[in-house]
Amino acid sequence: MPLGPGDSAAKQRRIPKGDLRKAAIIKAAMTIFARDGFAGASLSNVAKVAGLSTVGLLHHFPNKLALLQAVLKHRDEYVTRRLREADQDATLQSFMSFLKLVFEFSIEDASVSQALIIINTESLSVTHPANLWFCERFSIVHAHLNDHITRLVQAGEIRADVDVKQVALEVVSMMDGMQIQWLRSSCTLQIEAGFTRFLQRLERDLTRHL
Amino acid sequence: MPLGPGDSAAKQRRIPKGDLRKAAIIKAAMTIFARDGFAGASLSNVAKVAGLSTVGLLHHFPNKLALLQAVLKHRDEYVTRRLREADQDATLQSFMSFLKLVFEFSIEDASVSQALIIINTESLSVTHPANLWFCERFSIVHAHLNDHITRLVQAGEIRADVDVKQVALEVVSMMDGMQIQWLRSSCTLQIEAGFTRFLQRLERDLTRHL
Repeated sequence: MPLGPGDSAAKQRRIPKGDLRKAAIIKAAMTIFARDGFAGASLSNVAKVAGLSTVGLLHHFPNKLALLQAVLKHRDEYVTRRLREADQDATLQSFMSFLKLVFEFSIEDASVSQALIIINTESLSVTHPANLWFCERFSIVHAHLNDHITRLVQAGEIRADVDVKQVALEVVSMMDGMQIQWLRSSCTLQIEAGFTRFLQRLERDLTRHL
Repeated sequence: MPLGPGDSAAKQRRIPKGDLRKAAIIKAAMTIFARDGFAGASLSNVAKVAGLSTVGLLHHFPNKLALLQAVLKHRDEYVTRRLREADQDATLQSFMSFLKLVFEFSIEDASVSQALIIINTESLSVTHPANLWFCERFSIVHAHLNDHITRLVQAGEIRADVDVKQVALEVVSMMDGMQIQWLRSSCTLQIEAGFTRFLQRLERDLTRHL
């Protein structure tokens, strides 16, 4: 599938033609959303990038909202697949690896990253069609991090007096913020190294009294 | 002026009527940009919120781009005015106060904050009319922080082996990221306390070996 690497031509040959076409449209939508946001995007531009007529695109996605929903569903599936790689044991090391993995796939494709961060902030508006999706992700991500950090405390891996919610807040904020800095620098910032150094400082602090 | 608090009616009476009208339009633009982004905003909606006809608005701002430029110029002036309050001595305490002050006026008005963060990410696209403005701010902010942190090292206020650029990157990322988290939580997150706790952890780390 186009939004994650590692798919061979052989594998693609087994995918029905309609699905391939849909995947190409979703990839094109990411390119256009990265340039124009969701609000500024037009279906005719998405069709152009996908090498289709607008009518051809409308056959697969009747309107821009349907395309947005497909993009978000595709992202969900990709993230779920990637998170299966993650070891989520109650050890500090696996927590750090988990955060690195999440950050890694947040920045593996600048176009996807840019499209998602624009739609993310656009959808802060309650009238935006992606508002519910991002609100749900907000709750899921915080609940997941709070749970993981709490398990680290219980396992004696980190200080017992760690402010669990605060650490979750800092981690999520840093990921979003560093993505913006990376994209703003035209991806010239060594952002993965920057995030790793942040995690090292965090790790040192979480274990300070142990 | 409408984007910063503390202006009395008495003061406003001394401002020419045309300027007051312009200020009202800029305030209305923030409300609409916060809801629809720049890309999705329409001048007729801005006019409605400002209590004007679209023709009345066009008398002051001939197009959406002119309005955007006025909004960014207004923000620049406001930030410059607020930064005059800041003590920028080469002490760790004044550095921390400076960061708190900057964060404070980033979140004093949810509508302004939301409008600016949406336009910020929209403008990651090189085709966006605010791209240059945000790129310039990126350079100015990093140069300013790098300079301040370097002076702290020279003054012996913080560890000599501090990675200056890394600290600047973390501080800027945290500010942007926490703003998104705050707005996403419908401003229910105690974000100022969260940022203060981040600064406390940072401060402890910067002075670790002293």
